[in-house]
Formats: sequence, structure tokens, C-alpha cells
Amino acid sequence: MTFDEIMSLVKDEMKLVEDALYSNIDTNVTVLNEVIRYLISSGGKRIRPLLTVLSAKAVSSKSTKYIELASIIEYLHNATLLHDDIIDGATHRRNIPSANHKYGNDIAVLTGDYLYSRSYILLTDIEDTKIQKILSKVALTMSEGEVIQLISTAKLDITLDDYLKIIRSKTAVLFSAACEVGAMIGDVADSETKCFAEFGEKLGIAFQMSDDLLDYIGNETETGKNRGTDLKEGKITIPLLLLLELVDNETKDKISKIVLNENIAINDFDYIRDLITTFSIDKMVSQMIIDNMNDAINALSKIKDSDYKKALISLANLLINRKN
Amino acid sequence: MTFDEIMSLVKDEMKLVEDALYSNIDTNVTVLNEVIRYLISSGGKRIRPLLTVLSAKAVSSKSTKYIELASIIEYLHNATLLHDDIIDGATHRRNIPSANHKYGNDIAVLTGDYLYSRSYILLTDIEDTKIQKILSKVALTMSEGEVIQLISTAKLDITLDDYLKIIRSKTAVLFSAACEVGAMIGDVADSETKCFAEFGEKLGIAFQMSDDLLDYIGNETETGKNRGTDLKEGKITIPLLLLLELVDNETKDKISKIVLNENIAINDFDYIRDLITTFSIDKMVSQMIIDNMNDAINALSKIKDSDYKKALISLANLLINRKN
Repeated sequence: MTFDEIMSLVKDEMKLVEDALYSNIDTNVTVLNEVIRYLISSGGKRIRPLLTVLSAKAVSSKSTKYIELASIIEYLHNATLLHDDIIDGATHRRNIPSANHKYGNDIAVLTGDYLYSRSYILLTDIEDTKIQKILSKVALTMSEGEVIQLISTAKLDITLDDYLKIIRSKTAVLFSAACEVGAMIGDVADSETKCFAEFGEKLGIAFQMSDDLLDYIGNETETGKNRGTDLKEGKITIPLLLLLELVDNETKDKISKIVLNENIAINDFDYIRDLITTFSIDKMVSQMIIDNMNDAINALSKIKDSDYKKALISLANLLINRKN
Repeated sequence: MTFDEIMSLVKDEMKLVEDALYSNIDTNVTVLNEVIRYLISSGGKRIRPLLTVLSAKAVSSKSTKYIELASIIEYLHNATLLHDDIIDGATHRRNIPSANHKYGNDIAVLTGDYLYSRSYILLTDIEDTKIQKILSKVALTMSEGEVIQLISTAKLDITLDDYLKIIRSKTAVLFSAACEVGAMIGDVADSETKCFAEFGEKLGIAFQMSDDLLDYIGNETETGKNRGTDLKEGKITIPLLLLLELVDNETKDKISKIVLNENIAINDFDYIRDLITTFSIDKMVSQMIIDNMNDAINALSKIKDSDYKKALISLANLLINRKN
């Protein structure tokens, strides 16, 4: 299935999610309203809510609470983006000025706080303790993941385990929860919801690895993103991590100097990117992505076949083969 | 009762709250652990948890969940302090370097996020939907209050209503909830819990007004705080607000210039402080504080007498007559 085919399968449901995202803002404070609308309307692809909706439909959920759940998950995602962009000093997101850049860090901190508490209020309305626990745990883990990433900045001795812990915490737990709570609201057995959680977790890992790889070897015209952002921000991601294990000490010193330098020149980036292809790191990372994707798809093997399950698998394939 | 007498009345309970504050941190991320311990051990007076404990005891609560609730409320309070200090660019709190100053804004943003989500996890464990709704609404209102305060910075046309909205949102709602949920966990009628909510609300208003007055006329040696912080940060609080209504246009212009100036000299502050006493603004504000205090005490009139109720009233009196 193409992305459009997947979307048309749950067109009505995603329209309701979209409406909920706007109608749930519910504040009289004009600037909060404005910033949240700016975030919501800035063209995110709604991948996480889509996962929730597809998971709920895949288990033939009778409850329609997955619509609210999907909007909560998108709010949580936006709240973390908002605070992450402050920390990264980001000036752009999705090709437009980032909210922190446009409205200032102070407003961005408080809007993030507002979005978190709005999410918890909506979550309380769902009245499902298990789901509440999962999602508040997710928010906690994401903040931990961001802290670990922050203190690992420019640390060249970061291990693969450290890296996996960071991407699990900052990306995979939300992907996993998005799928798990979608299935959970459909009131199926724990053994089934666990399959969805596993699918989301592995997909999240593959998605983040693919994002991290694109930051080195992506085509800027196709991704619409500047390459080299991670290197500039001192984030040691999987391509650089694997490279450091393979190069000789002299090259390692050279890379180290580049990473520790505040201003990374374009030829510094090119130097590292060339090494990544020379040492076939791109192929190694692609294999790791494929392995995680296979695990993700296998996790759904016990789930009954349906167009929605097909759509989940197609979506997963699209996400890791994406160019943007 | 003196503060020590109040504390000795609930010594065992406050010891349990203190233990909960440390044992509930529960993260393997060393720096998060460190920052939260730094916050918790930095000598806050635990006024909000004390209100929760006293309210629960005043209704003879059989459930001991008020201990957890009190710790959650102190976490929420600390999370807002953390983010507020970032926004105010604060360098000190409680006479020691503020967490944002010591650990950096990035860590402070994320630690605040961690504390919020930790609070919600603990709140979910309480398994009381009503209490969950009250406290997540409180967090939401506090973020709204901070935004309103932020956009009102250096706006001399702020009205008394605006000011009351700000202090209700940023201070009174948490005081109110601290009392309300304490009574609520004691499983008494709504009519009673509402009395506690009202008591906390009015006390919160009186407390914040008293804080704002001290920032102009407090004795620095006794308060341990620098005066003039609000003026420096462009926060138009009740003393300045009332003053602006009473002075002639020429003086108003002079005040306006001082407020809009980035660097406020000590004689600028002295000039405004002297006007505040000349126009008896301090007496006017004191009367407003007393009025709110009387409302607070009246709100408890239908609650059965006990040492705990006495302690609540004594605490309220101590808080508004405090010198620090």
C-alpha cells in the first residue's frame, strides 16, 4: 500500500483525530492557542496517531476512544518536540521556523508544559488506569532519554548499548505505546496487545536509525532537511558510532577534533560522510534497520490478517524506506 | 500555634512525606537524580504538603494516601519552580544557586518534565479519578498563569483583574488543590471538601499578595531575599498596580520609564518603594491580605474543630505575617 492508500483506509478516523487535535486545545490564553495551532498545523505526518488508529482497527475495537488516545499521543509528541528544540537550539522544524525560534524559549517551555498537562487531563477522561500508566511512563522515559542524550553530547566513548538506550527512550517507547494502547482500547488479550507493543518498539528503533542514517547520507532535496545536524549538535548516532569502531587511531583523532569543534565546516562533514560510505557503514546500518523491521513484522504474525494489519506493515516499510 | 508546634503535631506524617519525596525519584539517570535531590534538599518549607496533611487529618482521614498526595503536590510545585526560574533567568533560589543556574537550562527543562510525569505516574497509582482531574487541571492552570504573567511583563496597563487571574493561576490553585485533595482522600462530603478548596484558594491569594508586598517593603536581612526582583523582571504586582492608579501623570511617566528600563538602579527602586509607603499602598495591600485571610478562615467555619483545623488557621496566619 502507498501512504495515500493507508490514509484513505482510515480517512474518517484520521479526520476525527485532526478535529480532536484542534478542539481539545481549550484555553483562553491567546498565545497558547496560537503556538499550539502553529505546531499542529505545521505539517507533521501524524505517524504516531496513525499507528494508534490502525492498531485499534486491526483488533476491531468497538470503543472509539482510540480517537482521543491518538490525539493525546500527538500532543505528547509535540510537547517533547517543543522542549527538544529548545535544547537543540533549533531554528527550523518541518521547513518552517521552529516554535521556540518564532515565539521564544520561554513561551515554548510553558506551551510544552501546557500540552503535557492537557494530555493528562484527556487521559484521565479515558478512565483506563492501565493506559494511563503506560502513557505517563512513556513521558517519563522520554525525558530520561533526552537527558541521557544531552549528557552524552560529543562523548566519543558512547557505546552501542548507550545509543540503543537513547533511541529506545526518546523514540521507540512512544511508537510502542501508540500501537499498544490502540490495541488495548480494543479490549483484546494481553498477549495480543504485547504483540502491538513489540511491533511499535522495533519499528521505532528502525525509524530512528533510518533518521540518523539519512542525516549523513540523505538527499537534501528529497528529505527537505539539512544533513549533518546531528554532527553539528554533537549527537553521536549509529553511523558515527560504528565508524569510530572501524577506523585507525589517527582517523579517530581527526574525527574527534571535528566533533569537539563548535563550528563544523562543510568539508569536515563531507570527510566523515565519505568515510561512512567507504567503510560501508551505510550498508551495515541498513542491515540493522532491516533486522529490526523483520522483528517488527514478525511481532504481528499472530494477529489476524486484515487490511489494517497490512496497512501497519506497509506503513512500517514506507517509514524506513522514506526519503523524508 | 508556632510553626514548630504545627510541625510537631504532624511530625510523623511529614517525616513520611519527606521520605516519599526521596524514595519516589526512582531514576537510573544520575544527573536527574542529582538535580531532583538538589531541589528537594534545598530547604523549601513544605507548605503545600503540610496543607495536604493537615487537611486530611482535619477530616480524620482513614486512608494514608495523603502522604503520597502531599509528595506529588511538592513535586508539581518544584517542577513549576524549575521552569519559572528558567523563564525569569533566576540565578538563586532559597539563598543557593538555582537549579537552572547550577545545571543549565537544558537539564532544568528536562528535569521539570521528568517531575511532571513522575507526578502523574504517582497520581495514577492513587486511583482516584476526581483527584487526578483536579491535579492535572492545576498543572494546566499553572502553565496558563505563567504564560499570562509572561505576556504581561512590563505592561503598565495591566488591571487588578489581570493580576488576580495571574496569582490565582500561578499560586492559589495549587494551595487550593493541596487542601481540597487532602480532605477528599479522607472521603468526606463534597460540601466539606469545597470548604477546604476555598480556604486554600483565599490563603493562596493572601500568600502571593504578601510575597509581592515583601518584594517592595520586606526587610532583606529577615526575608533573606533581595527586594525589587519583581520590578527588575518587569512583573507588575499589586503594590505597583495600586500605585499607578493613584499617582499623577508625570509620576506615572517616571515610573513607566523605570519599568521599561532593562537596568533598574537602586535609587529607582527606592523612589518607587518610597512612593508606595507615601501613598499608603502597603496599608491598602495589607488590608486586602487580611480580607482574603478572613475569607479563608471563614471557609473553615463549618469544619469540626480540632487541633488540625487550628493548625491550618495558625499556619495561614504565620504565612501572611511571615518575614521570609
